[in-house]
Formats: sequence, C-alpha cells, structure tokens
Amino acid sequence: MGRLVGIDLGGTSIRAAVATGPTSYGTPVVRRATPASDGPRAVIDACAEAAREAAGGTPEGIAIGIPGPLDPTGGIVFAAPHLPGFENLPARDMLAEAAGCPVAIHNDSNLAGYAEWAAGMGRGTHSFVFVIVGTGIGGALIVDGNLRVGVAGTAAEVGHVPCDPDGPVCGQGHPGCLEGIASGTGIARQAEAALRAGEASSLPRDRPLDGAIIARAARAGDAVAARVYAEAGRALGRSFGGLINILGPEAIAVGGGVTGQFDLLEGPLRRGMAEIAFATPLGHCRVGKAELGSDAGLVGAVAWAVRSFPGS
Amino acid sequence: MGRLVGIDLGGTSIRAAVATGPTSYGTPVVRRATPASDGPRAVIDACAEAAREAAGGTPEGIAIGIPGPLDPTGGIVFAAPHLPGFENLPARDMLAEAAGCPVAIHNDSNLAGYAEWAAGMGRGTHSFVFVIVGTGIGGALIVDGNLRVGVAGTAAEVGHVPCDPDGPVCGQGHPGCLEGIASGTGIARQAEAALRAGEASSLPRDRPLDGAIIARAARAGDAVAARVYAEAGRALGRSFGGLINILGPEAIAVGGGVTGQFDLLEGPLRRGMAEIAFATPLGHCRVGKAELGSDAGLVGAVAWAVRSFPGS
Repeated sequence: MGRLVGIDLGGTSIRAAVATGPTSYGTPVVRRATPASDGPRAVIDACAEAAREAAGGTPEGIAIGIPGPLDPTGGIVFAAPHLPGFENLPARDMLAEAAGCPVAIHNDSNLAGYAEWAAGMGRGTHSFVFVIVGTGIGGALIVDGNLRVGVAGTAAEVGHVPCDPDGPVCGQGHPGCLEGIASGTGIARQAEAALRAGEASSLPRDRPLDGAIIARAARAGDAVAARVYAEAGRALGRSFGGLINILGPEAIAVGGGVTGQFDLLEGPLRRGMAEIAFATPLGHCRVGKAELGSDAGLVGAVAWAVRSFPGS
Repeated sequence: MGRLVGIDLGGTSIRAAVATGPTSYGTPVVRRATPASDGPRAVIDACAEAAREAAGGTPEGIAIGIPGPLDPTGGIVFAAPHLPGFENLPARDMLAEAAGCPVAIHNDSNLAGYAEWAAGMGRGTHSFVFVIVGTGIGGALIVDGNLRVGVAGTAAEVGHVPCDPDGPVCGQGHPGCLEGIASGTGIARQAEAALRAGEASSLPRDRPLDGAIIARAARAGDAVAARVYAEAGRALGRSFGGLINILGPEAIAVGGGVTGQFDLLEGPLRRGMAEIAFATPLGHCRVGKAELGSDAGLVGAVAWAVRSFPGS
C-alpha cells in the first residue's frame, strides 16, 4: 500500500489521511481553515503539507477531492465556488509539484459516491447512483464498477435535470431544474416565496430560512413547511424514477445534509419514484440513505488513491 | 461471418437478413404480415422460417429485435404491446428451438441505437445516446462501446423521465413524463386538448389528429399547432440537457417518425437543451438527426448477431 494519501479539500477545511487498506486510513490530519482567500497556490501548498504530515514523509501518491466541476483526465479544475482562483486551474500538476509525487484529482461528490459504492450503501453493486443533497445537489455514477465522468469529466450532475418547465431557477441558472426545488437552498426559497405570497405559517419572516428551520416547523405541523418538503421529496423521487428508467441501477443512495430530514422526504420520494419508474427496474433497485455521512469524502479520496496508484 | 442472421420483428412486419459484414447484410427477406393474432408460437415460427430463408439453410446464429421491454440476459420478453401473448415469454429459447441455432434477443429501440452507434450518426463515439420519437419515445445508451441495459434489462427508457409535475399522463401511465408531451401521441393529445378548450385553430375538430396533420398546420402558421411542437421540442431539449449533465455523451441522435418534423422541433430543442445543460459538456456533445432511418432496426439486429456470435 506504500504511503498513499487521500485528501478531502473543502472551502473551510482540509483533511488528509494515509491509506491502510482499500477503503481504510490512519488518523486524519485536519486543517480547520483552508487558506482559500490567499489564492490557489496557498491552498495547494497547504494540501501538500497536510499530505506529507499524514504520510510521515513524501507520499507515493495522492488523490484529492475538490468541490467543483473538473476534468480528472486532464487534471484541470474548471471552477470551485468556495475556492477563489480555482478557475481552469491545473490543480493536479500544481499539487504533484508541491508534494513531489503523482496526483489524481476528482470531484468531491464523485469521490463521496465512490466511497458509498466501495464501502457504504452501494457495496457489492455493479451499477450505483449516489445523490448528495445539501446546499446544492450533486452525485456520482458507478457503471460496471467504474466511476463515470463523461466526455468532459463533469458527468453525474444528477441535481441538474429538468423537473418543472415553470419551476424556479437553480443556483447554476437552470430554470426548473431539480436543484432549484429539492436542494436545501431550493427548499428555503420555496418557503420564503410562500411567506412573501402571504401564506399563513409559523415560519419566521424576519430572517433567512434554511432546511433545518423549515424541517422543525414541518414536524410541528406547519403546512407551508410540510408542503415544501413534500414537493422536494416528490421532485427527488420523480428524478430517481427517471434515473431508474434510464440506467437501471441496483441501488440509489441519498447523502448530504438532507439525510437529517429524510423522515420528511421519504414518503413523497417513494411515491414520486413510483409515478415515473417502471415496476421491473424499480423492483430491482434499493433506495435509501447513504451510510458514511461526512466521512464519505475522505474515504473516497483514500480509496481513489489506492485505485489510481495500484503499484504503490 | 458464417450464416448469421438479424431479424427486425415488428407488430406488422418481419424482416430478416444474413450478415455480410459487421453492419452490412444481403437482400432482406420481408414478411409483410406478422401473424400477431395467431399468438407467440406462430410469430416465432415465422421468424425462424424467415431466418432460414435469409441464410439459405440453418443459420449459425440469430439476433432479433423485439418491440417491448425484455431481459436480453435471461432471454425473456416482459411485454410487447403489438404482439398479443408476448408476456413473460421465453422468446430466446423458443426461437432457438424453432430455428435450430443460438439466439440473442434485444429490445428493438436498443438495437436501432446500436446501429446508429456502429454505422450511423454515433460512429466513432465511446458514449452515445439514441432517442427514437414516434408513437412513444424509446432509446438506447452506449457507454464505453457497450449497450447498457441496466439491472433488469430494461434501461435506456429515455422517454420516461420527469418533465412537468402537472403534465399529462403518458402511454405507460406516468404523470408528466416526457413521452406524454413530446411523442407523436403526446403532441396529438396536447393539440386535441387545446381544441377542446376552445382555442382558435385551423386544425380539424372532426377526426383524430396525428403528428403529420399538426406539422402541416404548424408550417401553415396555425398557432396551436406551432405551440404544441414548440413545447414538445423544448421538453425534448430539456431532457437532452439532463442526459448531458448526467452522462456526458459525445453525441445524441434523434430518430423515429418525428425526424420528418425536425425543422419544427430543432430550435426549441436546442434552446431547451441550453436551459439545463452545463456549457462544458454541452460543447462536447453533437446533437442531430439519426442517419439510418427505418433501416436502423435491421442494421442493429445484424450487427448484434455479429457481435453476439463472434466465433461464427
């Protein structure tokens, strides 16, 4: 196994760990502040240093998950919303130079999904879909044991699928796509729109809403809060139905912050799925919560390092 | 190449041809009437006879495209709407026994898409999506040169994806899925609904509408006819945008009867695609008309026979 390191790079923290097995690792090195405002060079140097510390010397290989669309084959990050300057950045070669070892880069949601397939809810499947619902909606796609990235490296954007031709615009500017309705941000915006339209609700009108506030109100019986969660669940379920009809996966796992509100989503989600999915492939597909929680990103990075550098 | 035969089985006709190359074949044997009303045994026997005639003796292998959901691995047809009695039918083994040779069965739309990939619009790509728009909407998915069928054998149902939570029910009973809006049947129903609602239109009110009648009216300036085509084109385009975001294919080909009306659909389709697709994968994906027309099914069956029985 050599000294292979996985890194989970976020907008606010960096975590690095040395692989001790295909999906296991030693005590992680944690940097509680990503030097995002100091620019890409500072972020890359901090990652290299964390990797050296995790490996106890120069690593033999690093895989890093980065929060943004990127091309893993070319090693280029197209954009990373929480990391200023990560625009068309040759992140792979920069980190390889800084760390003195070969590097593989990948999208963080893709690696979290890879972890769920290798060691979580999707264990043992050949075809698997991971959907991470938080501020936005991302995901990963495993086909025949391979993480699919598509021709441009950016595939598995399962949140950016059509949902409602008259629906709200998502964070990426797509009118009526799933993310605008079913992400945490989308749920908050739908609730705020209902309040602005004068609907009766116990939700606070004097501050921005978020998924957790709305979930508490829904559980306490607020009709607006319950409705926006039901609509989000139905939209997720219909989109899962579409994925089942197109891909016929063996399992779909739902991860991200929204798993804390899965009780509010699950009923409408399963009914929405049955609206669209054919019975035969639906009957072959397990759908449920992801298992690895916030560890998924680091598990995935470590597993990807082991997969990318098999000779080490 | 031996005597490998491809069969395109339809509700109204049977065509069989012997392979002369990976995607080429000799003069097809055509049966202008499928004995559908005589039941599955009669249909299978007619296919076996056509195959023997095409091969000039007992074939060394047959691949057959069948119009309905099926499991190519298990050789079972789940249902075929235009072939009474094709329900959970072991069609592969029945045809193998009747013809005296090994048989591969596949969904007809999947094989038409395979043909477009092997010899048509998708030539040279590694990842390709075929969408066939006629009475219904079907398709095929090629990933890394493999036809994807999913865990139940029924994948690539690209017409059965969510489109509008308040949209009409499709022919398979899914509320607001793409087929209900953008298939020939869907287009006719939307126009009929507009007439029933009293909208002014030159469309005939005394007989059922179809895609061709509505297309003529749209080209002559009828507003209702133009609108239903524009809505169908937008819905198709948005769904293509979702496929691009999820799969990142190199090309998407549109086949089926609707290609005759592609002039009415193309503008709204391309705008709808741009509503949803990210710019990077959109820029890597060619989208256009399929090239093989009504030959695609037979080309695909022959090509699949050659692929399935490489030793012959």
